[in-house]
Amino acid sequence: MFELDKRLSQDTATVGHFKLSQLLLSKDSRYPWCILVPQVNGITESYQLTQQQQIELCQESALVASQLMTMFNGDSMNVAALGNVVSQLHVHHVVRFEHDACWPGPIWGQGESQPYESCDFESLALKVAQRFEGKLGFKAAY
Amino acid sequence: MFELDKRLSQDTATVGHFKLSQLLLSKDSRYPWCILVPQVNGITESYQLTQQQQIELCQESALVASQLMTMFNGDSMNVAALGNVVSQLHVHHVVRFEHDACWPGPIWGQGESQPYESCDFESLALKVAQRFEGKLGFKAAY
Repeated sequence: MFELDKRLSQDTATVGHFKLSQLLLSKDSRYPWCILVPQVNGITESYQLTQQQQIELCQESALVASQLMTMFNGDSMNVAALGNVVSQLHVHHVVRFEHDACWPGPIWGQGESQPYESCDFESLALKVAQRFEGKLGFKAAY
Repeated sequence: MFELDKRLSQDTATVGHFKLSQLLLSKDSRYPWCILVPQVNGITESYQLTQQQQIELCQESALVASQLMTMFNGDSMNVAALGNVVSQLHVHHVVRFEHDACWPGPIWGQGESQPYESCDFESLALKVAQRFEGKLGFKAAY
């Protein structure tokens, strides 16, 4: 049984599941920000996945990146697997804007997370879930 | 004819070429840091590559990440496509250590680049090039 890291679980909500990965939505309203977490215990780096899983993660990541950019019309998409704070493999997908708080620097570890209004978060999570329904085996949790 | 972005060209040296991507070595000695740049003009996001190219990039990235971690015995591998400063698609691979200058934060935009001694850089570039010789079509430029 796959267990999501507690810090990831605390900072996000699970929007749904692709074939390989959980799709999380960050509770930080400063950026449209989704995270893919391959549902394989004990993995810290993507090269530890099987070759087939690596291809699946690559496809899921490309889909999430392209769809988020289409939804939010961003200036840049930041895709990153860092793992310095949370070691469980997770891949950030952050839509960036030239007018955002950290531009052009990276967002991680900068400033304080700004929560969404509760109904705004629920509505965004639903919108994101609907976007991926049926794609790459996605099943919505919203 | 593929043209490498000027900023990337200035901050790195080309160690060699995989089937899809150029492999660059950063001139910043603070971190073992390689960058993959798919040799396709006009691409800013990985999802703009063809599906076959996306798989190739994924394979080249996994190889670079795993080999750098083996070479340097790092604590974490940061893999990131940001593109906020240089829009040409490029994927960072940075070996991180719990004792490094920015740990656990991201390295981009932090502090000043520290140049290598010239002979140290040449020797490292050669060592990196040898590591990849013949893998995924790699041809060394060193």
